[in-house]
Amino acid sequence: MGEYRYVRQTENIMNYMSFAGSRLIVFEDFEGHRDPTIRWLSNHPGDALIFLSNDIMGKPILVPWDVNMAKQYASDFFTIIPYTDFERNPYKALKAVVEIMNVPPGSRIEIPPETSYPSFLRYVDTLPDYDIICREDGTHAEIKAMRAIKAAEEIERYRTAARITNEVIDELEKQIRAGAFKTEVDVAQFIEREGRMRGCEGTGFETLVAGPKRSFGIHAFPSYTGEPFGTQGLSIIDFGLKYDGYTTDVTITVAKGPLNRTQERMLSLVEKAYNLAVSLAKEGTPTRDIALAVDTHFEKAKKKMPHALGHGIGVEAHEEPAIRSRSDNEWVLQQGMVFTLEPGLYDPAHGGCRLENDFMLTENGLEQLTNSRIIRIPE
Amino acid sequence: MGEYRYVRQTENIMNYMSFAGSRLIVFEDFEGHRDPTIRWLSNHPGDALIFLSNDIMGKPILVPWDVNMAKQYASDFFTIIPYTDFERNPYKALKAVVEIMNVPPGSRIEIPPETSYPSFLRYVDTLPDYDIICREDGTHAEIKAMRAIKAAEEIERYRTAARITNEVIDELEKQIRAGAFKTEVDVAQFIEREGRMRGCEGTGFETLVAGPKRSFGIHAFPSYTGEPFGTQGLSIIDFGLKYDGYTTDVTITVAKGPLNRTQERMLSLVEKAYNLAVSLAKEGTPTRDIALAVDTHFEKAKKKMPHALGHGIGVEAHEEPAIRSRSDNEWVLQQGMVFTLEPGLYDPAHGGCRLENDFMLTENGLEQLTNSRIIRIPE
Repeated sequence: MGEYRYVRQTENIMNYMSFAGSRLIVFEDFEGHRDPTIRWLSNHPGDALIFLSNDIMGKPILVPWDVNMAKQYASDFFTIIPYTDFERNPYKALKAVVEIMNVPPGSRIEIPPETSYPSFLRYVDTLPDYDIICREDGTHAEIKAMRAIKAAEEIERYRTAARITNEVIDELEKQIRAGAFKTEVDVAQFIEREGRMRGCEGTGFETLVAGPKRSFGIHAFPSYTGEPFGTQGLSIIDFGLKYDGYTTDVTITVAKGPLNRTQERMLSLVEKAYNLAVSLAKEGTPTRDIALAVDTHFEKAKKKMPHALGHGIGVEAHEEPAIRSRSDNEWVLQQGMVFTLEPGLYDPAHGGCRLENDFMLTENGLEQLTNSRIIRIPE
Repeated sequence: MGEYRYVRQTENIMNYMSFAGSRLIVFEDFEGHRDPTIRWLSNHPGDALIFLSNDIMGKPILVPWDVNMAKQYASDFFTIIPYTDFERNPYKALKAVVEIMNVPPGSRIEIPPETSYPSFLRYVDTLPDYDIICREDGTHAEIKAMRAIKAAEEIERYRTAARITNEVIDELEKQIRAGAFKTEVDVAQFIEREGRMRGCEGTGFETLVAGPKRSFGIHAFPSYTGEPFGTQGLSIIDFGLKYDGYTTDVTITVAKGPLNRTQERMLSLVEKAYNLAVSLAKEGTPTRDIALAVDTHFEKAKKKMPHALGHGIGVEAHEEPAIRSRSDNEWVLQQGMVFTLEPGLYDPAHGGCRLENDFMLTENGLEQLTNSRIIRIPE
């Protein structure tokens, strides 16, 4: 099931490689430089290299660290060669693959744009007769753009991921209102357990649970502790559940009264920012325009949001499209994009609040996938 | 407390920079290219840049994403400038810092060796009058070597981390023998909760809990699930607890009888490999020699270990020294090193087993910090 997806993706990439004049492309996912494109391309979970040749006769090659894992997970479309065959050395692997795939000297080989400068030099040394390319605007970037538009199978997985996330959000609210959680640890473990027992692979990133004393941090540190949760003031829960490779990303604020005026104002500003962002998220809109509108909204209130308004989600918790006001952001909303909108404000004295949900742009417009909310608890 | 450590470390680095002819060094820790050296240098948890000038009068500069977090955590020894002041752009930050720190044109500036080739070019473009250096054998590598030798304050933290880890291991064994865990999720959540409630920041990496059906994976995928744990056969638990920045890393195998001959043989080979490694881990010994001895031991039995024998631990779960048989490994054991030894064997049909503990080399020889073991449960 879904095997055809891997073939179709590979064909799309090969078409782009023809256009870019590339003969071979390399992907790398190891500790220190993760690239979930490996999973997106092959269904293999990671710790591997992939070599994809622009040669209609050649099967792509997967070089996994754990060959038993690859046999269980990787699409049949790939030839598997254990990384140990190349002494777990990427340069040796590339050199061997160039021979196996009959890549003629002089060909253009694209290595990941994240390749370090010293490593780039080593690739060039290893294959002096080839044109080694390491560019931010090459085929790898094109693949990130492809990944930003979800295919039917991916959207199906997102529907499941969102359904489970929403079930967990509803359960969370019930437990919070019942006063069932004493500490941040209780909340984080509840999410993790409920998600995994419903078939999720886990959380898409480290769950953040911050009670009133710690919610001023954009990303609380430590992520969750034995401190009280949901006591008077503003508490934040930021989590994602990963289903079959695809993660959600939501943030709930729990506001327990009595709140002071600053806190009430923060909540109201964030809610307005959220509604503004949602109203602007339409096909064809530059994401920078949405982020700038929210920045202006906060500026009018003499506040400043210290992070981006949102981001695409998928096999990574942060992927394309970018949704931020930085001048280099040129992304435009398109059908098939799945992304977060997550305005927030933070104050060391009064705590933080953020409201974050996941959205998909469909032919019928913006669809809200998740149901995070600000949960108000009376005194 | 411990403030002096940050000053001393900085002085050591400045001395090395003088030797290497460098005027300024840059450190970067963001999503996609983590460098816990930021924390080691400043106590700030991450998402930041650090600029350190070889100028006795200049305070080092910390450029955090979350300035509230930095004010709470960073050593007073650092000047804090919010990343938003540079539009969250590392090139703009470097350009501004060069002026703030009065770095004269022509000076050598070291950027992280992990810097991508395209990013390296952009740094060079940004500061054409400076000598931008991106090398694997520069000051950053020297700092990794410094990090491999733990200071007194770091060893103290390791004693606490190890004590908590050992308490959790003992509790785990009790619960396992009592049959308290039904699923992998139960085990993973027990570890996480027990660690955090005892004051740990969390786990040092994603806990891996694999019942007999899934223990063949070197790193189980997903990391833990609703599958049964500790039923007949070989189950693996691999976890680390992080205390005040420093993580342990241990692996327990649970062997529930009746085992077949292959499984018994795997356990016995791994135990022998472990004892062999421990007996060879002495001051002055090249770590490659230890790893080669273990490789030979497994080869005699016609087995092959698909991963390294061990690695240093500290603010990262994997740091220097390397302990593996690859020909480029030149590390030699020295006093103050804290590291794992973790032989393992994996079989898709019979499961996996690994035994991993943490050790420190002291003036009195090898000290075992943690008490992982193979837990045998009768039928």
